[in-house]
Amino acid sequence: MISQLRKDQISGRWVIIASERSKRPDDFRPAQPEKKDNPAGFCPFCQGNETKTPPEVFSLRKKGSGPDEPGWWVRVVPNKFPALTRGQLPQRTSQGLFESMEGVGVHEVIIETPEHDQEWSDLPQARLRDVLWTYQQRIRSIETESQYQYIQVFKNKGTEAGASLSHPHSQIVATPIIPKRVKEEIWSSDRFFRKSKECLFCQTLKEEIEAKERLIRVNSHFAVTAPFASRFPFEMRVHPLRHSPFFSKASDAELLSLAENLQAVLTKFKNILSDPPFNVILHQGPHPGLARKTWPNVESLFHWHLEIIPVLTRLAGFEWGTGFYINPVPPELAASYLRE
Amino acid sequence: MISQLRKDQISGRWVIIASERSKRPDDFRPAQPEKKDNPAGFCPFCQGNETKTPPEVFSLRKKGSGPDEPGWWVRVVPNKFPALTRGQLPQRTSQGLFESMEGVGVHEVIIETPEHDQEWSDLPQARLRDVLWTYQQRIRSIETESQYQYIQVFKNKGTEAGASLSHPHSQIVATPIIPKRVKEEIWSSDRFFRKSKECLFCQTLKEEIEAKERLIRVNSHFAVTAPFASRFPFEMRVHPLRHSPFFSKASDAELLSLAENLQAVLTKFKNILSDPPFNVILHQGPHPGLARKTWPNVESLFHWHLEIIPVLTRLAGFEWGTGFYINPVPPELAASYLRE
Repeated sequence: MISQLRKDQISGRWVIIASERSKRPDDFRPAQPEKKDNPAGFCPFCQGNETKTPPEVFSLRKKGSGPDEPGWWVRVVPNKFPALTRGQLPQRTSQGLFESMEGVGVHEVIIETPEHDQEWSDLPQARLRDVLWTYQQRIRSIETESQYQYIQVFKNKGTEAGASLSHPHSQIVATPIIPKRVKEEIWSSDRFFRKSKECLFCQTLKEEIEAKERLIRVNSHFAVTAPFASRFPFEMRVHPLRHSPFFSKASDAELLSLAENLQAVLTKFKNILSDPPFNVILHQGPHPGLARKTWPNVESLFHWHLEIIPVLTRLAGFEWGTGFYINPVPPELAASYLRE
Repeated sequence: MISQLRKDQISGRWVIIASERSKRPDDFRPAQPEKKDNPAGFCPFCQGNETKTPPEVFSLRKKGSGPDEPGWWVRVVPNKFPALTRGQLPQRTSQGLFESMEGVGVHEVIIETPEHDQEWSDLPQARLRDVLWTYQQRIRSIETESQYQYIQVFKNKGTEAGASLSHPHSQIVATPIIPKRVKEEIWSSDRFFRKSKECLFCQTLKEEIEAKERLIRVNSHFAVTAPFASRFPFEMRVHPLRHSPFFSKASDAELLSLAENLQAVLTKFKNILSDPPFNVILHQGPHPGLARKTWPNVESLFHWHLEIIPVLTRLAGFEWGTGFYINPVPPELAASYLRE
């Protein structure tokens, strides 16, 4: 069977769905389970080791317990080796074509549980909701420091997915410029909105729900799909049913519904793919005050969403050269495995 | 020391040079050398096993030896599991937002040597020149099939870099659309050319040669640099000194000079980084007949080049979410290690 080229309307990128190489979930089972960092060894994120991280900036903890003491269930600390550090809005400097600016920004770690081995799929639902609620609190707080144009929340699970510590955690990075990938999504959505007066994300979601074949799970407030132009085997996208540019404005009912959907699909994912390494990324609109200068209607254009990317294949020269991806598992097939 | 944000003018992407996390080449030495596929096992690319690949489409071989027999030193065969397959120019079809086309294109494998373990750095210089010359022959031949808009040549070395067989080989993929990454480079170059009437690549090269600090090696026809906004530790870019959009039009003297430079830097690379997995990608201008319709002056805009990307770090959620890269080795430091 010939392969198919598919275009992702949101990013503008093409993928090759190579059914010739089609694979089943079992083909991706690791030869041996991933080695955790020394299980008897020291973990700075475990309860009792609070003094081994920079002082906490936020926590959910038992009444009567103090900062940097045990008694917490979610804890946020500055990254000990930050990619970007807080400071005044830097100037861009150019020497000929060499354009740079100081690495000003925020880099925090959200420790999602005091237990070393308690993954998202193992947490009580209300506890995962608390993790998501903590994201909101940190985003809102960082947004008051108006020099940062974008806030990226993400989670790396497993060494192959870039995690240097196995204790469950997420990260928040605030950057002084709007990242290219976010701009590309806004540009596509803007073009679509001019033509159709619709949000590109809302329309995509509507068509995915009608088409059914890539739909993995829908609950009260969220739909999970295997995107039409999935880059990777078993990639998932989580869309809020309600149009909203900002994750930080999701309601408590929405957070609980999101936790319910995430736990269901990640449990399935863990079972059929033998606990794969994965990344979760949150895309929400850029800082509204700043983005409105460029896109006055940015709130109509953007629709926040989560991407879940399992790390099962390698990027290679073709992907680096072209920006295309070759995906050996059609998303329709992935969805059929991931559906309950 | 605070990190630095740097912009790559050619791709438009930002990278974070995180000197806070700065690393030496030894920090990237693998815990254990990569396992080759079973060394006693069967390899379809080794001499004597010619019948185990699809029939060859090109070879450099001893007089008197016939196709698909031993006696060759470079051999090109169709990929047995092609991502794209030859055919008539497909129509794009749309169902609502779901846009696709048949996976029409070309996917060939260039077997670079009959010897299973003979890497680029081990080949006699004239033999590496022959591999590069073979790229040219295949590009010219595929360009006569005018339905393909772009030809991507690349090499994956090592499992971590996406190679499924360890026998040295490169690949050629011709696609029916111009890839996003190539378009982005042309757009940037076009914007720069309108302002300055200069080729962006020529100007970058001129400034890198003046700045010296990221220059790794210059010979008669090529300069190798650690790019100012390197995404990855020890990334290299190889620029022809002469402006030319097309690798396929490089002279024999240029190919030999390229082989000389590649062998020198890859030998250094292998020694200081313990034979790392890497990708090589060739960017040349898109099919001139087709590209001229969109960019009448495409030949002034594009300047072919090679990128060499060692696989030493992992992409993680931050990179996927933003398109930024975090590089723990400043290119000035990388260049100082890679310089002779």
